[in-house]
Amino acid sequence: MSSQKNSWRERLHEIIFEADTPMGKAFDVALIMTILASVVVVMLDSVPSIRARYASLLFTLEWYFTLLFTIEYVLRLVLVKRPMQYALSFFGLVDLFAVLPTYLALLFPGTQYLLVIRLLRLLRVFRVLKLVTYLDEADTLYRAMRASRRKITVFLLAVSILVVLLGSVMYFIEGEENGFTSIPQSIYWAVVTLTTVGYGDMAPQSPIGQAVASVVMIIGYGIIAVPTGIVTAELTRVERRGTSTKNCRNCAHEIHRDDAVYCRICGEKL
Amino acid sequence: MSSQKNSWRERLHEIIFEADTPMGKAFDVALIMTILASVVVVMLDSVPSIRARYASLLFTLEWYFTLLFTIEYVLRLVLVKRPMQYALSFFGLVDLFAVLPTYLALLFPGTQYLLVIRLLRLLRVFRVLKLVTYLDEADTLYRAMRASRRKITVFLLAVSILVVLLGSVMYFIEGEENGFTSIPQSIYWAVVTLTTVGYGDMAPQSPIGQAVASVVMIIGYGIIAVPTGIVTAELTRVERRGTSTKNCRNCAHEIHRDDAVYCRICGEKL
Amino acid sequence: MSSQKNSWRERLHEIIFEADTPMGKAFDVALIMTILASVVVVMLDSVPSIRARYASLLFTLEWYFTLLFTIEYVLRLVLVKRPMQYALSFFGLVDLFAVLPTYLALLFPGTQYLLVIRLLRLLRVFRVLKLVTYLDEADTLYRAMRASRRKITVFLLAVSILVVLLGSVMYFIEGEENGFTSIPQSIYWAVVTLTTVGYGDMAPQSPIGQAVASVVMIIGYGIIAVPTGIVTAELTRVERRGTSTKNCRNCAHEIHRDDAVYCRICGEKL
Amino acid sequence: MSSQKNSWRERLHEIIFEADTPMGKAFDVALIMTILASVVVVMLDSVPSIRARYASLLFTLEWYFTLLFTIEYVLRLVLVKRPMQYALSFFGLVDLFAVLPTYLALLFPGTQYLLVIRLLRLLRVFRVLKLVTYLDEADTLYRAMRASRRKITVFLLAVSILVVLLGSVMYFIEGEENGFTSIPQSIYWAVVTLTTVGYGDMAPQSPIGQAVASVVMIIGYGIIAVPTGIVTAELTRVERRGTSTKNCRNCAHEIHRDDAVYCRICGEKL
Repeated sequence: MSSQKNSWRERLHEIIFEADTPMGKAFDVALIMTILASVVVVMLDSVPSIRARYASLLFTLEWYFTLLFTIEYVLRLVLVKRPMQYALSFFGLVDLFAVLPTYLALLFPGTQYLLVIRLLRLLRVFRVLKLVTYLDEADTLYRAMRASRRKITVFLLAVSILVVLLGSVMYFIEGEENGFTSIPQSIYWAVVTLTTVGYGDMAPQSPIGQAVASVVMIIGYGIIAVPTGIVTAELTRVERRGTSTKNCRNCAHEIHRDDAVYCRICGEKL
Repeated sequence: MSSQKNSWRERLHEIIFEADTPMGKAFDVALIMTILASVVVVMLDSVPSIRARYASLLFTLEWYFTLLFTIEYVLRLVLVKRPMQYALSFFGLVDLFAVLPTYLALLFPGTQYLLVIRLLRLLRVFRVLKLVTYLDEADTLYRAMRASRRKITVFLLAVSILVVLLGSVMYFIEGEENGFTSIPQSIYWAVVTLTTVGYGDMAPQSPIGQAVASVVMIIGYGIIAVPTGIVTAELTRVERRGTSTKNCRNCAHEIHRDDAVYCRICGEKL
Repeated sequence: MSSQKNSWRERLHEIIFEADTPMGKAFDVALIMTILASVVVVMLDSVPSIRARYASLLFTLEWYFTLLFTIEYVLRLVLVKRPMQYALSFFGLVDLFAVLPTYLALLFPGTQYLLVIRLLRLLRVFRVLKLVTYLDEADTLYRAMRASRRKITVFLLAVSILVVLLGSVMYFIEGEENGFTSIPQSIYWAVVTLTTVGYGDMAPQSPIGQAVASVVMIIGYGIIAVPTGIVTAELTRVERRGTSTKNCRNCAHEIHRDDAVYCRICGEKL
Repeated sequence: MSSQKNSWRERLHEIIFEADTPMGKAFDVALIMTILASVVVVMLDSVPSIRARYASLLFTLEWYFTLLFTIEYVLRLVLVKRPMQYALSFFGLVDLFAVLPTYLALLFPGTQYLLVIRLLRLLRVFRVLKLVTYLDEADTLYRAMRASRRKITVFLLAVSILVVLLGSVMYFIEGEENGFTSIPQSIYWAVVTLTTVGYGDMAPQSPIGQAVASVVMIIGYGIIAVPTGIVTAELTRVERRGTSTKNCRNCAHEIHRDDAVYCRICGEKL
């Protein structure tokens, strides 16, 4: 990409930021492994029984990963052309939050809960993956999601209003004595029911409440068809567009239908 | 739209009923905010702990919103050409029910539950949204739903009969000692199971009951495919049809893409 | 349809078996109403509190409906050309089972549970509906289901084997002390989980069990896509075929694609 | 297939390994029956009440099936051309594991749990089915799954990361006092909720936790659309492609329908 390829700076940049060279790929794989291992350590650290036993081992591992990520963060800051822009970018902040909580917990004891933030490290996997693999597949999915963005917003809006109204009706019917203690609580029940999750921590007791709940469930069962329909229709469309490979010789217009005889833009016979 | 644009009546009508002018848009946004705020107040008012603390604040806010909506309702009645027709229309009644319960609760104490009706205010958001945004998306969804209306009715009819029969069979198998106290109760269980909600407040205990329940679950898991298939097929069709309006003058071929300049079958310039 | 239209026999046959005449339609509507009312009576009869209060009213109503259905059954037997064939047909047996349990309960007291069979009356609604309405929609759905019959069988077979293996694994992992008392019981749990019903009457307690359960849930969440995909693909195909209205002038072959220029069977230019 | 058809070896090979002859078909059906019967015996053996009663009968049946499968396994080893390759193949190992546990339990008492492995016999049904029926349907499904393999991997990856982050957030919000005792436990909750299973063994108690849970449910309810969309789009494509194999000699147009006699674009006889 540039002519002074020999400087260590250029080479480090290539290893850390790109995935085309063998060294770059090896770095990416090692980074993903390290991220996943550090996430597992954070998780195990939260299990009381494991913590009681291996506290010092987990503590050592955590500092080992934190130092590794700190070195990586500093290297990225040094190597990148505009350090400020990187530091304030989404992934720059994720990189910072991946190391900050460990240092803060050292300075201010009692901020144990802050350590959960370290799990944001998991987001860093996305950056690496972005460079390496599955690019096309993720892109097709992303484009289909983006294209159906507005339809899904309309759907979620309708669902939200439905949930508020149904929850209020159930508050009115079941009342506090059956566990529907407030409207927000009843709306929570409506969400649990409409999405077919159904914990069972709140369930209608009265016959009328059960009848209304049945209607809610059947509605929820039915309208799940809507987002599915939206995404499917979009995916079919995105993929259909994606399979066209011919181009018009005259105007270079991409031919979308296999059975076209004339280019529909310039009229050239194909 | 008219020539006497200067009269206050015309201008107020434009602000309240239309969304094309800056003032009209600002009014719509303010109205949505007010509606949502008033709905939040109604919700919080139902939470015992919050009510105990902020009763007077919530009371004041409620009256503030009620007065605002009353003024708006009166203005709409005055400004519209046929006030009676508006008053009896769906949104006219919603507007009325948005303010009425607060006044009624003043006159007849003890009608606390009536206050839930105020949540119908939420429906007013739809009218505003109708004017402002997302029009096309909602329309596509609405058309797909309308077109698949009858198929979904057939499906729901079949599901209803299935649920009644399955519920009765379970009442017969499990009986009152396992919580299936009556046929309606067992039908409620069948709905909870078939829609994959699964509260767990009623669950089969006997081996035969569990076997039948397994069949019900797999049926429910399978037939959710039907409404999804209906809506998806319809959405794909509506979208395909929705973009094609022209026909080729020469060969009468239907033009499927808006950007076509030449017919792709006979080469005629469109 | 025939020339001796005046005989009472012909006219009764028309009223009971057909839905084209006003009288025939009125009979069908009245029959549906009666069936639904009798089903509601059977349901209410199973609710202990209602039974205690209105026992004699429900008893009277039940006999009223039974007599009505008996008369109808006898009339059908008399009017139809081949009474034996009708009596042994699916709907003939349903008609018989709709009245038999009431008489049996009279002769043999203690056969209360047999009364549940009366709910099979609900199936009679299908025959009436078949004549009246929604014919096309049910037919499209039925054809799509039929066409995807074998694919769905393969899917259900795979799901069944999966459920048996997953249930056995969980029996091995969780064991009797966590409620997984036997392999059939564990298979029941696997069905409840895979279909995303999730009663919660059995839930894994050990960390490994919860990890395996998580995998089961994600599999269940993913493979619900398969039946949906099958039915949707079929519905799209059935409908596409259904929308073609042109026919070839030469060979009367139905034209399936809007953009066809020549008939693909006889080569006639369209 | 060969000329020395009369040798018993050839004929036994045909019966056991092929399904074209009547004897071969009969053998396959008998084998499936035996496998299913032996699986039922293993299942019943795990039910405490049945085991207590019919221990000796189940023991006899188990040995009967084990001997049958042993004979079959030895015959396969003898008849196949490369016994070593068969013994180490997937189905060869399944055949071995189908008989081994019974013998091991004889030698080493107390290995009761090993007996669960015998349920792997169920996998043997697949080999038989592969020869007999439903081949095309399974193949279409398999191809659609294979084609959407990478997209589903991307989806599952995204879901996994989402589940870890959401679980951690809930651990932070609800804490140990509400049953969210560790991050892995909270991730388990997130899976149970996102997949809409909803056991109810863990449920958020605090208002904020319930609000976050509502968002998780609606996300789960929405993104189920993604795998469905992927599989549906793929199935539609596989089926469309599967039926088109010819191309027009004149205009190279791909023929989409098997019954076409003339190209619908240029009118050339095919």
